[in-house]
Amino acid sequence: MRLASNEFLPLGSVKIKDGFWSRYQDIAKNKIIPYQWRAINDQIPGVEPSRAIANFRVAAGLEEGGFGGMVFQDSDVAKWLEAVAYRLSIDPDEELEKTADAVIDLIGQAQEEDGYLDTYFQIEEPDKKFTNLNECHELYCAGHMTEAAVAYYEATGKDKLLSIMRRFVDLIDRKIGPEEGKLHGYPGHPELELALCRLYRATGEKRYLDLCAYMINARGTKPYFFEEELEKRDHRAFWGGGRQEHVDLKYNQSHLPIREQKEAVGHAVRAGYLYTGVADLAAETGDAELMQAAETLWNNVVNRQMYVTGAVGSQVWGEAFSFDYHLPNDSVYGETCAAISMVFFARQMLRSHPDRRYSDVLERLIYNGTISGMALDGEHFFYTNPLAVWETATRHAGVTRHIRSKRPGWFGCACCPPNLARMITSLGGYIYSASADTLYVHLYIGSEASFELDGKTVAISQSGNYPWDGELTFKPGAGRYTLALRIPGWARSYVLRINGREVHPALEKGYAMLPGTWEDGDTVTLTLPMPVEFTEANPLLRADDGRVALTRGPVVYCFESADNGDALDALRVVRPSDFEPETDPSLFPGMTALTGTAKRRTDWTGDELYRLSDGDDEKTVPVRAIPYAFWGNRDDTREMAVWVRK
Amino acid sequence: MRLASNEFLPLGSVKIKDGFWSRYQDIAKNKIIPYQWRAINDQIPGVEPSRAIANFRVAAGLEEGGFGGMVFQDSDVAKWLEAVAYRLSIDPDEELEKTADAVIDLIGQAQEEDGYLDTYFQIEEPDKKFTNLNECHELYCAGHMTEAAVAYYEATGKDKLLSIMRRFVDLIDRKIGPEEGKLHGYPGHPELELALCRLYRATGEKRYLDLCAYMINARGTKPYFFEEELEKRDHRAFWGGGRQEHVDLKYNQSHLPIREQKEAVGHAVRAGYLYTGVADLAAETGDAELMQAAETLWNNVVNRQMYVTGAVGSQVWGEAFSFDYHLPNDSVYGETCAAISMVFFARQMLRSHPDRRYSDVLERLIYNGTISGMALDGEHFFYTNPLAVWETATRHAGVTRHIRSKRPGWFGCACCPPNLARMITSLGGYIYSASADTLYVHLYIGSEASFELDGKTVAISQSGNYPWDGELTFKPGAGRYTLALRIPGWARSYVLRINGREVHPALEKGYAMLPGTWEDGDTVTLTLPMPVEFTEANPLLRADDGRVALTRGPVVYCFESADNGDALDALRVVRPSDFEPETDPSLFPGMTALTGTAKRRTDWTGDELYRLSDGDDEKTVPVRAIPYAFWGNRDDTREMAVWVRK
Repeated sequence: MRLASNEFLPLGSVKIKDGFWSRYQDIAKNKIIPYQWRAINDQIPGVEPSRAIANFRVAAGLEEGGFGGMVFQDSDVAKWLEAVAYRLSIDPDEELEKTADAVIDLIGQAQEEDGYLDTYFQIEEPDKKFTNLNECHELYCAGHMTEAAVAYYEATGKDKLLSIMRRFVDLIDRKIGPEEGKLHGYPGHPELELALCRLYRATGEKRYLDLCAYMINARGTKPYFFEEELEKRDHRAFWGGGRQEHVDLKYNQSHLPIREQKEAVGHAVRAGYLYTGVADLAAETGDAELMQAAETLWNNVVNRQMYVTGAVGSQVWGEAFSFDYHLPNDSVYGETCAAISMVFFARQMLRSHPDRRYSDVLERLIYNGTISGMALDGEHFFYTNPLAVWETATRHAGVTRHIRSKRPGWFGCACCPPNLARMITSLGGYIYSASADTLYVHLYIGSEASFELDGKTVAISQSGNYPWDGELTFKPGAGRYTLALRIPGWARSYVLRINGREVHPALEKGYAMLPGTWEDGDTVTLTLPMPVEFTEANPLLRADDGRVALTRGPVVYCFESADNGDALDALRVVRPSDFEPETDPSLFPGMTALTGTAKRRTDWTGDELYRLSDGDDEKTVPVRAIPYAFWGNRDDTREMAVWVRK
Repeated sequence: MRLASNEFLPLGSVKIKDGFWSRYQDIAKNKIIPYQWRAINDQIPGVEPSRAIANFRVAAGLEEGGFGGMVFQDSDVAKWLEAVAYRLSIDPDEELEKTADAVIDLIGQAQEEDGYLDTYFQIEEPDKKFTNLNECHELYCAGHMTEAAVAYYEATGKDKLLSIMRRFVDLIDRKIGPEEGKLHGYPGHPELELALCRLYRATGEKRYLDLCAYMINARGTKPYFFEEELEKRDHRAFWGGGRQEHVDLKYNQSHLPIREQKEAVGHAVRAGYLYTGVADLAAETGDAELMQAAETLWNNVVNRQMYVTGAVGSQVWGEAFSFDYHLPNDSVYGETCAAISMVFFARQMLRSHPDRRYSDVLERLIYNGTISGMALDGEHFFYTNPLAVWETATRHAGVTRHIRSKRPGWFGCACCPPNLARMITSLGGYIYSASADTLYVHLYIGSEASFELDGKTVAISQSGNYPWDGELTFKPGAGRYTLALRIPGWARSYVLRINGREVHPALEKGYAMLPGTWEDGDTVTLTLPMPVEFTEANPLLRADDGRVALTRGPVVYCFESADNGDALDALRVVRPSDFEPETDPSLFPGMTALTGTAKRRTDWTGDELYRLSDGDDEKTVPVRAIPYAFWGNRDDTREMAVWVRK
């Protein structure tokens, strides 16, 4: 029995009209996608050529030359196509579609007779295909291109790329599996797993789900495939080219069978993609034990290893998780892509369990630790998303040398910008889900949508000024169904009204359940008061003891030196809080800043580093916090802090 | 005119009789020196052979074989000989002296005709001598062996090793210098500079001081010697063997002429040894500008880059300084040898300026960040000396993977234990200094000493139970001179009595000046009240904002999980402080622990990582702090913290 109890409304049936997200979607449409197109076509002056499209031309025999870029360069083309597909879903564009069609034609020309498609191996090492699943990203690229194929098919109805990828996946299916003579392998960088679930749903072909199940269940079993593979390669490492004794199995979560993994370890993006595939596979196959494994890992991430912004991956070493409650704010990695992978994971958990434990985290992610990766100009990007920055330390201290205090432009290894593009353009697919008799509203994003109920199409819309304001209005279309509205965990209270009359429905796992026979013209309003809150951390989270983060609704705030001077750790906020919201559109339309006062040490006039204390002499100073996602958008980025002393 | 205004009493005329330091000297005599002897002779089972003595036998033609150990392995023999020399100064031992004489004979046999002496190059690369001053430690080893030679000569009157090293230094003098045809070079790892000053004082030969002056003044001038040297080697790197494009000049302080250096940068031990040589050279030559350079660097280290324990080197990258006010407590390097190098630097500054600015730091160093490197059993050692430890993080987080929470045994690269041995055995040479008419007491270490005044020998003694108690008694021998007693910067008040009568002398740079015609039997007492203090840091030192360190007298305290449970950051100390000293000899005879209460968060019962705050619910809990130097001497070393929240 499938565990998926509800399905998200498809992107094509949701239209976002939202003060906050429409602007982000415009940025994705008008900045990221066109910029990325020029990037993969080597048209950005001063930036090292990507060669991503050129590689396909070389593989297709249309151009002479070698392979350029990273071994996973093909995935940049895939991510662009996937973002284009979503963009076409929400806003058709004939010319863009033609461009995409031409790229797909090129990909078809590059594909080999037997279905093989990976331009690195085709151009550089044609005799080494499938010999280094651990390091060489063949299956990772196949996963991204499969996601693009499904998205493009769903957006346009065109199945050319889908057919291409089915042929490649069929080849992979002939090469990898439990049977003797096949490789008992799986992706070094998980991604194909979740793509196979999507391919299964798009095509109805069960063997894609079976291949996914094989890869997920074989992972981490003994003898370790990646160790055997290394031995077969005479211990030759791809990266660096030297001799490698052992594989760091934890790095890519292949150290244990997934059902025995209790803690998130290793490279955070790999983990997020793997867990997403695990949750999806469990939902589709009804494998309750596997779902429990996903749940265990979800809980570990969310209750032990996730920053208040939703960022994950607390260390630069391996861009990885470290261990429970170890969440340093300054030396964190917090890769944008890793936060996005948690968005995917949350969505898959919600399909089986409509529970605000998942949707609250989803909301935390989309308003904070994901979009913090992009400047408000849509042209500069962070890989790392720290919660405390001291600009000097990013230049002079090894511990934070991976941190940037200003977002640079497009990167050579360009994973995060296109990942943001596909998250933002596909966001419509995260707002609503429907079961047989219930329509869930997971996110409060102004939108119009429609869903099928007993063979009829029902419309629903919501509007408001979220996340700056908690007054929300819903227009449920006519029909007999339960409208389920998430009551966020951050809301201390709420008021629900149906056609003006206050109601007090039951909460089910954090959702207010409003059963009814709705009529056109009905109005439901939800009021979520949004006072400025001090959010605190579990005392076991050593880095945040004695500190609070300012939050309001789903938005996490930060203090920047531009508003508050240097040495932000010398500030201390006090109770009762006098922070008030203040609308300030200078950075972003409708943005709400928080203004109030704090205490600052002012009694230190000498040059000495230490002295005997005679108690504190503090001055009350005005301070100002802005949404964390918008930090680093002004010239002065000397210091930033989310957690301030109390 | 020399700047050195006072000279430390030589080791041979000071006898330490002190509850605290006599025990450390016993450990050095009975544990470190014998253990190191076995280590350099490859007699420690289970430890990789040092080969240090064997290398000399091979170089001398007494044994077949290759070179073993690090390129600077010779320095281990030098440090052992130097420690033995000090040990013989304070406590003669005929058998040990015979053993040392035999080693010196062996060194003489290994020396080449022209004076050359470095077993790595003699055995492995005889044609590469003086071609890689930057990386290969030839001059560094020469420096250590020269220090040993001077110390052995001063301890025993035997000049064989001194002659050996004079021949080698004479060779270096012929190879290096400003003249055409000579190398315009200097040590990659400073050390020879300070040794040349000692050699100059021991021999009276001015050319040793001139060679030191050349090396110090040439350092960092353009064209950069190490860059030119690299080019001559066709960019071949010694470490790793690959091609090296550029030299990291800041790493070894060769990026600027020393007179233009305003901030301590690079490898902290290199810096400390260099600055010591600079201060010594300036004192001997009367070069006021050079002394100003030393003063500038001293101030930068002490007022911007030194931990409250005296540790320096805030990062593992390059075991180096990072930048002003960047002193993370957990990811610090704080190498034991670096703290010891600051002891040397302080001593040289004191020779020109009797000022408690230097001696307070000297005291901070010897009671805290140096001896923390050694377990109380004398057999286990830390390289790194963190101020906050979370044992799990030392295993699972890259940022603290260089940190140990328990002291391991002797290391392959054994720099710190013998450095501690020579500091501890030579400590008598740091207590007193004399100018023409003044005897300075810099450290309060129970001892008997004698000094020359107008051709007569005057005795002086001091006794007390320092650092646990501030009642000190001095017995100045007969004569007309000023007794200058340091009033520590940590003392809020003090009482001085001469033969029981309270006196109120003038303070000169922190020293109470007691001029007088002393008579045998006179007694001076100094009472330094030692309440438990909260020490606080400059607000610009971000890592310590909102925190205090408990101190009492010169001793910095720490909290360990063995006494206070886990999550030490969840503790908060409050004013007024109820901490009281408590004698607890379980770890160390006479040790004073501090007991009191703190607040601990106890209101968090859920599993969640974050929540909206409703204010704190704290419980008062008993807590206990022990001297920082003694941390990590019990089985349970899960967590330790010097700076606690207030």
